Amino acid sequence: MDSIAKQSVRICPFINKAASSLRNVKTLKQSNVPLMAQKCPFMGQAMQKAHLATSAAPEVAKMSQRATSASESAQDSVMVDHATQDSKFDYDGLFEHEVRKKRVDKSYRFFNNINRLAKEFPMAHRQTEEDKVTVWCSNDYLALSKNQQVVDVMKRILDKYGAGAGGTRNIAGHNQHALRLEAEVAALHKKEGALVFSSCFVANDAVISLLGQKLKDLVIFSDELNHASMIVGIKHASTTKHIFKHNDLDHLEQLLASYPRSTPKLIAFESVYSMSGSVADIGKICDLAEKYGALTFLDEVHAVGLYGPHGAGVAEHCDFESHRKAGIASPNYRTVMDRVDMITGTLGKSFGTVGGYVAGSLRLIDWLRSYAPGFIFTTSLPPAVMAGAAEAIRFQRSHLDLRQAQQRHTAYVKKGLADLDIPVIPNPSHIVPILIGNPDLARQASEILMDKHRIYVQAINFPTVARGTERLRITPTPGHTDDLSDILLEAVDDVFNTLQLPRVRDWEMQGGLLGVGQAEYDAAPNLWTQEQLQLTNGDLQPNVKEPIIDLLEVSSGIRY
Amino acid sequence: MDSIAKQSVRICPFINKAASSLRNVKTLKQSNVPLMAQKCPFMGQAMQKAHLATSAAPEVAKMSQRATSASESAQDSVMVDHATQDSKFDYDGLFEHEVRKKRVDKSYRFFNNINRLAKEFPMAHRQTEEDKVTVWCSNDYLALSKNQQVVDVMKRILDKYGAGAGGTRNIAGHNQHALRLEAEVAALHKKEGALVFSSCFVANDAVISLLGQKLKDLVIFSDELNHASMIVGIKHASTTKHIFKHNDLDHLEQLLASYPRSTPKLIAFESVYSMSGSVADIGKICDLAEKYGALTFLDEVHAVGLYGPHGAGVAEHCDFESHRKAGIASPNYRTVMDRVDMITGTLGKSFGTVGGYVAGSLRLIDWLRSYAPGFIFTTSLPPAVMAGAAEAIRFQRSHLDLRQAQQRHTAYVKKGLADLDIPVIPNPSHIVPILIGNPDLARQASEILMDKHRIYVQAINFPTVARGTERLRITPTPGHTDDLSDILLEAVDDVFNTLQLPRVRDWEMQGGLLGVGQAEYDAAPNLWTQEQLQLTNGDLQPNVKEPIIDLLEVSSGIRY
Repeated sequence: MDSIAKQSVRICPFINKAASSLRNVKTLKQSNVPLMAQKCPFMGQAMQKAHLATSAAPEVAKMSQRATSASESAQDSVMVDHATQDSKFDYDGLFEHEVRKKRVDKSYRFFNNINRLAKEFPMAHRQTEEDKVTVWCSNDYLALSKNQQVVDVMKRILDKYGAGAGGTRNIAGHNQHALRLEAEVAALHKKEGALVFSSCFVANDAVISLLGQKLKDLVIFSDELNHASMIVGIKHASTTKHIFKHNDLDHLEQLLASYPRSTPKLIAFESVYSMSGSVADIGKICDLAEKYGALTFLDEVHAVGLYGPHGAGVAEHCDFESHRKAGIASPNYRTVMDRVDMITGTLGKSFGTVGGYVAGSLRLIDWLRSYAPGFIFTTSLPPAVMAGAAEAIRFQRSHLDLRQAQQRHTAYVKKGLADLDIPVIPNPSHIVPILIGNPDLARQASEILMDKHRIYVQAINFPTVARGTERLRITPTPGHTDDLSDILLEAVDDVFNTLQLPRVRDWEMQGGLLGVGQAEYDAAPNLWTQEQLQLTNGDLQPNVKEPIIDLLEVSSGIRY
Repeated sequence: MDSIAKQSVRICPFINKAASSLRNVKTLKQSNVPLMAQKCPFMGQAMQKAHLATSAAPEVAKMSQRATSASESAQDSVMVDHATQDSKFDYDGLFEHEVRKKRVDKSYRFFNNINRLAKEFPMAHRQTEEDKVTVWCSNDYLALSKNQQVVDVMKRILDKYGAGAGGTRNIAGHNQHALRLEAEVAALHKKEGALVFSSCFVANDAVISLLGQKLKDLVIFSDELNHASMIVGIKHASTTKHIFKHNDLDHLEQLLASYPRSTPKLIAFESVYSMSGSVADIGKICDLAEKYGALTFLDEVHAVGLYGPHGAGVAEHCDFESHRKAGIASPNYRTVMDRVDMITGTLGKSFGTVGGYVAGSLRLIDWLRSYAPGFIFTTSLPPAVMAGAAEAIRFQRSHLDLRQAQQRHTAYVKKGLADLDIPVIPNPSHIVPILIGNPDLARQASEILMDKHRIYVQAINFPTVARGTERLRITPTPGHTDDLSDILLEAVDDVFNTLQLPRVRDWEMQGGLLGVGQAEYDAAPNLWTQEQLQLTNGDLQPNVKEPIIDLLEVSSGIRY
């Protein structure tokens, strides 16, 4: 056992260096040992409290977050000369160097000027209005951004309530549009409450980081393909984390089981992983959460609007028939959606506007509302945006046909690509990821599609996907008819010929990648069944269109 | 010197415990030593790399971010029983307990349903349309949210380009509206480039945290009254920070001088501190930055639109006459605004919409664009919002009269309150903070204003301001006429009588607070001089209204 202590002394730079190099004051001044000590969560705190070793090494004390007193100024003045004689840090050089790295490894990003035309969906113009292209990679999955009801509501609210909210939720920025939107979101996910944020990036970051900061000893279990916003939130949570292999529930259970049930835990995962289209087994994750006493945090960003009879996402889809029959009411048993503690979603993809949210129990929502800086200290979304988003949620809830058309068009494109031996990463969802596997070729493919075929499909490169798995990500919508799909298929085939890109048979010979060219790969069945695709809007309960405003207000106990 | 090493061993919980308690495996299992080790930035990393002590203490290895192998599953299964027998952590109890704390200390927040009416500015209705109040605390400082030109542009863009951007800037969400808005922002601040974020909370967090993460050994110097968004950014920067006393440049210099000039440094501060109205000496901070080789990060969130001949903020105001004469061109010398490396601002206050931005050199902007997760991984603002914000910036740039009217109304209210002996925290800006000093009385004052006088002024409590300094924060706009101000003054006087709130003379007797009732307090002169207030829009160079679109595109070297 002593060997751990000895190893530790070697690993800890403070202890290690303190024992030897601290013997020489001159060395200490020039060394970064005090800085290292400051970074240590234990040493740093202790130094602040005790002003450790102030007499022996004044620099150490200065590292503390506030200067101790003005009495050190005489000593400082000696430093001043020294400090101003050096040349300053080369900030511009660093910025340039870092950007140059991206140019070298081909991950430097060129933004395309894409102006999506509401009345010519899915067309957009580039710099000039005449220069039109078909957009095949937007996340406006249901084309609700151009929906006339949504646009009309927004114009009406703009006229009546102006362009902006004018304040934070606490100071002049709370209004009926926020209340209604949060009531709509809560009803959609059949949760007690919801909270709207500037974006779902902010929602994910704010919720996860707050949980980490407030729940002492929280352990976070995170799927390895989780979105950047969750990764950032987990980092900011400053607590122990474990990354489990993508959708690998055995691995997740193994990790969960290494803690007592009483340890607070959070399982953070997505329903549809946007760059691969893979889908989590939400029910089984809830089983594990219950077994090991964990909270569940589910990101449905790429699923809301697209799954479930009312577009609440994959969690709703798990109990499709029950939810369909119950309408906005809850089925008379505990559904998968009920079992998820927190669902986050976006208003900026299927719901056509901008913003993000979390839905959950009223206790949770009131706690987040009271403590999350990313919610408290920021201007509310404009009333028109909140009203437009609420309208989009209401509209899509009763329009099963939108989801079905999206599915049919996805199936058409996937089949067409398969017939051409074009490698699509297999998945049970609406995402069509064409594997390229090289950043420069992915960019070239995107450029040829744009310049020669007037089709816009952005190349997806690092850091959005892992290096070596670069892809073209195609997102069909209800507006992408078979005619447009045929043009796309021909264009993609041409690009694969022009650039000699590997087809499925080529990937097969290399042993395959991500399920492409891998015979043994067990592809999950499509989430939508043929039966579900044959239902009509009339098969939904009519009460799905009823306003549910004020339900939250009444039930919340929060005096709004 | 050896004593530091010995002290360190005592302070470091890992070393300390490792040497003694690790001798007993049973103790280790129940102790939180492995968790502590995991939290140590040095030990944690090393453990991951080397799977330190896997054989001696398996739990330590399990703390590493990924489980090592499936071979531990046999051992895990022993744990499973143990893990599932315990009762789970009481999440709801924690949420409830934390919210209850806020109710007890009176910092629990009740949101007011305030629907600001564009055509009746500054009126709003509450839950019902008949229930109208005058809003005196919004941050829609120039009333641009209800500006007809802004609203009309937004409606036109909604019709043509739809409700939402449909993607991130990299994937289908970049368009001419983003380009134009960023060009307007860059031109406003006379910087090479600008980058728009979901909010200025996100901009501040994203920029500061990235600087800390990418500039090795960066030291951040932060004003103690900095906004929560900057504090969060600094926390996420995970680097050494020093907090200097509010606007205390001697203290700042003392801290700066303790590092070699070559050490990378960032001075983070605001121009107008929104809750007190105090103003930084930007020029002198730039002097210090140059002397000690630091970058300057200036938050002008509460100053844009309100200061400078063109509304670029306090930095522009510092060289008022030169900027006024030069129009959108640069004066022929290095102005204070030129000397600031990064300026952040919001589109959600004076500019009437929503969103935030940073302006700076092209190198900096391209670097942020390429690396900041909060920029990369989030849906762009809707085209209509970006177009509305750009229109608001253009409109206010040529409307000196808006800034002047805001100033005149502020002066009227401040004088009226002074005549009534109502305590206003003295400041040289447009903020009117009425000191109450007690959370419950502040809330009651706000409620009486609302219920009896139909005036909405939100009580500002912790965490927005320090406990014991609770206040009512009044924000006059060009729409708050003298008639409305007279009604406000009478109402505030009534509230002070009703609640027996301390007036200036009462604060005097207690020794004063924040400059209130402190005779020796050296109040800074108002930023706007009488001469500046007498200029007309015609005194601005006419070219301020010229479109400056595409300037950035041409000069940037970035292929958009």
